[in-house]
Amino acid sequence: MNRRDLLKKGAVAGAAVAASVVGTSSSAVASGKKYRWRMVTAWPPAFPILQTGAERFAKRVGELTGGRLTIQVYAGGELVPPLGVFDAVSSGSVQCGHSAAYYWAGKCNAAQWFTSIPFGMDAQGMNDWFYFGNGLKLWEEVYSNFNLVPRPAGNTGVQMGGWFNKKINSMADFKGVKMRMPGIGGKVLAKAGGAVVLLPGGEIYTSLERGVIDATEWVGPCHDIRMGFYKVAKYYYYPGWHEPGSTLEFIMNKKAYDALPSDLKAALDTAAAELNVQMLSEFETENAKGLAELRKSGKIEILRFPDDVMENLKKLSAETIAELAEKDPLSKKVNADFMAFKKQLSEWNRISEKAYYDFML
Amino acid sequence: MNRRDLLKKGAVAGAAVAASVVGTSSSAVASGKKYRWRMVTAWPPAFPILQTGAERFAKRVGELTGGRLTIQVYAGGELVPPLGVFDAVSSGSVQCGHSAAYYWAGKCNAAQWFTSIPFGMDAQGMNDWFYFGNGLKLWEEVYSNFNLVPRPAGNTGVQMGGWFNKKINSMADFKGVKMRMPGIGGKVLAKAGGAVVLLPGGEIYTSLERGVIDATEWVGPCHDIRMGFYKVAKYYYYPGWHEPGSTLEFIMNKKAYDALPSDLKAALDTAAAELNVQMLSEFETENAKGLAELRKSGKIEILRFPDDVMENLKKLSAETIAELAEKDPLSKKVNADFMAFKKQLSEWNRISEKAYYDFML
Repeated sequence: MNRRDLLKKGAVAGAAVAASVVGTSSSAVASGKKYRWRMVTAWPPAFPILQTGAERFAKRVGELTGGRLTIQVYAGGELVPPLGVFDAVSSGSVQCGHSAAYYWAGKCNAAQWFTSIPFGMDAQGMNDWFYFGNGLKLWEEVYSNFNLVPRPAGNTGVQMGGWFNKKINSMADFKGVKMRMPGIGGKVLAKAGGAVVLLPGGEIYTSLERGVIDATEWVGPCHDIRMGFYKVAKYYYYPGWHEPGSTLEFIMNKKAYDALPSDLKAALDTAAAELNVQMLSEFETENAKGLAELRKSGKIEILRFPDDVMENLKKLSAETIAELAEKDPLSKKVNADFMAFKKQLSEWNRISEKAYYDFML
Repeated sequence: MNRRDLLKKGAVAGAAVAASVVGTSSSAVASGKKYRWRMVTAWPPAFPILQTGAERFAKRVGELTGGRLTIQVYAGGELVPPLGVFDAVSSGSVQCGHSAAYYWAGKCNAAQWFTSIPFGMDAQGMNDWFYFGNGLKLWEEVYSNFNLVPRPAGNTGVQMGGWFNKKINSMADFKGVKMRMPGIGGKVLAKAGGAVVLLPGGEIYTSLERGVIDATEWVGPCHDIRMGFYKVAKYYYYPGWHEPGSTLEFIMNKKAYDALPSDLKAALDTAAAELNVQMLSEFETENAKGLAELRKSGKIEILRFPDDVMENLKKLSAETIAELAEKDPLSKKVNADFMAFKKQLSEWNRISEKAYYDFML
């Protein structure tokens, strides 16, 4: 036994005694073991709010644990591709990731309800469902099949419905519109007669410029303004319906999580909740600033889809979601719980937030 | 030195060596010192969501710190009276408390903006202001004069506007109404001709029963139903305007906080953020359930104040808040920042949450 080992063992023994003296079962002091985790994300390097939020989270975990658990963060493409997060964490090649559950729809259909579904709940409703409904329990059940432990860890708020180079006055106006729109929203648009184009973020601007697409959705004013869409042409900018409160996820490899002492588990869980509330606040604050800037550009007109267009999109969304819910028993169970929770919550929202907004805005 | 001291010192020395071996500056492991804090709250024992939330927070801090920081929680009246929280923490007779800043209006006028003001921001807006505007910085500045460090730590959501034994069809209907309504809302009601009665929670029910008051506000369906107001008579239940998103506070004695190693500070800060997001979710979820129950009772009718009543209440509120803002330079500074932030955020809310709610509810 060399000196270093000796010192380590001595420390552990001493600490263990201390724990028994003060009567705690502190696994923290008792082990002294250090954990080095790696996190992969689905976001570009330095991407505002999402990547910077994941990095703030990692820093917080380091602070909380006095350096006993450190997390090295890798942006999309640095260690694995942006859409390789799920597999990398599931297989255990890294311990954790930050991403969005609906990216994994192809591998895990039920995952989609844990991000956002068209005409679903807003950010607050999602949190209510996760923390005091069955949302997080169901998410854990769904992900346990993939050796993953999920935590809600951020929310974009209501995403904008998109940029269009013509006004949408009726459902007929969607016919033939070439639009970049991923996810369930894209499926709905296709049902409405749109030509859905799948494009990575980096190709949207030039595709608009070259007329490859007529319309696109992205996130909200803060990120949309950085993409520069408003510079291409005059656009009509519409409030959203397809992602009313997209939850971001912090996912951990189950074996790695289970191997941690309880105080380090608590550090991850608590820091995820902090990220969850703060990332939404950052989105809201930055979107408010971004909107003011966009308006100054004079290149956008903010409109609303007419009520009958929204009714039709809602009907097509309900059809699409019902089809997805039939794909497997877990999806059916998640959808049923989501819808029941939403229904009860809506009645309260109607006389609280909605009543207040009706008067104030 | 007795055996216990010896064991403790040995443990600390061993742990300090361990820290140097693994190359961290972990004040956690390095000190091994235990902190026992006491928390006093403004809530009755076992009071749902508020007191139970404070207790969950204390438990979480214990888990996060492996028992190195423990917090013993005392409900209102157990150690100090419910409204003695501020003084007890400010003086250092206890280390921390859970309460609401507007309770301290008499000692600290500027505190009121950090809970909620009539026609102010909702819960999400308050969080945005705290975390990514100047809200928390200003709150720290205001409270530093009282040797206090504040953290947002929960939110009630939009509070209901109250129970009335007659319909409010015009401002004239407020004249002579004897109503239990504290805070700025009460001041506004008095301006409208109401007879404001100050009553502790425990006396509201019998005061309604005996006709001492005609109307009351409390919190929201979840708590209102427990108070049993609906059993007294048929009531008209109105959505709120006076507290659109009341933030609860976790306050710490500044000396006690400053004396902690950085990882324990991080534990308190992070656990407060977790409580902040989760308490609001619990309020929303339980209010939705409470509303469904209240409706089943058949004893309430949910109405809305007519638009001109709301306009008048808003005008009287603006007058009242402007008067309060003139009381001292700090209040003026806080009010100006609050209003500017709210204005920019409102524009975004209008095309995001509001636009979505307009269609959905």
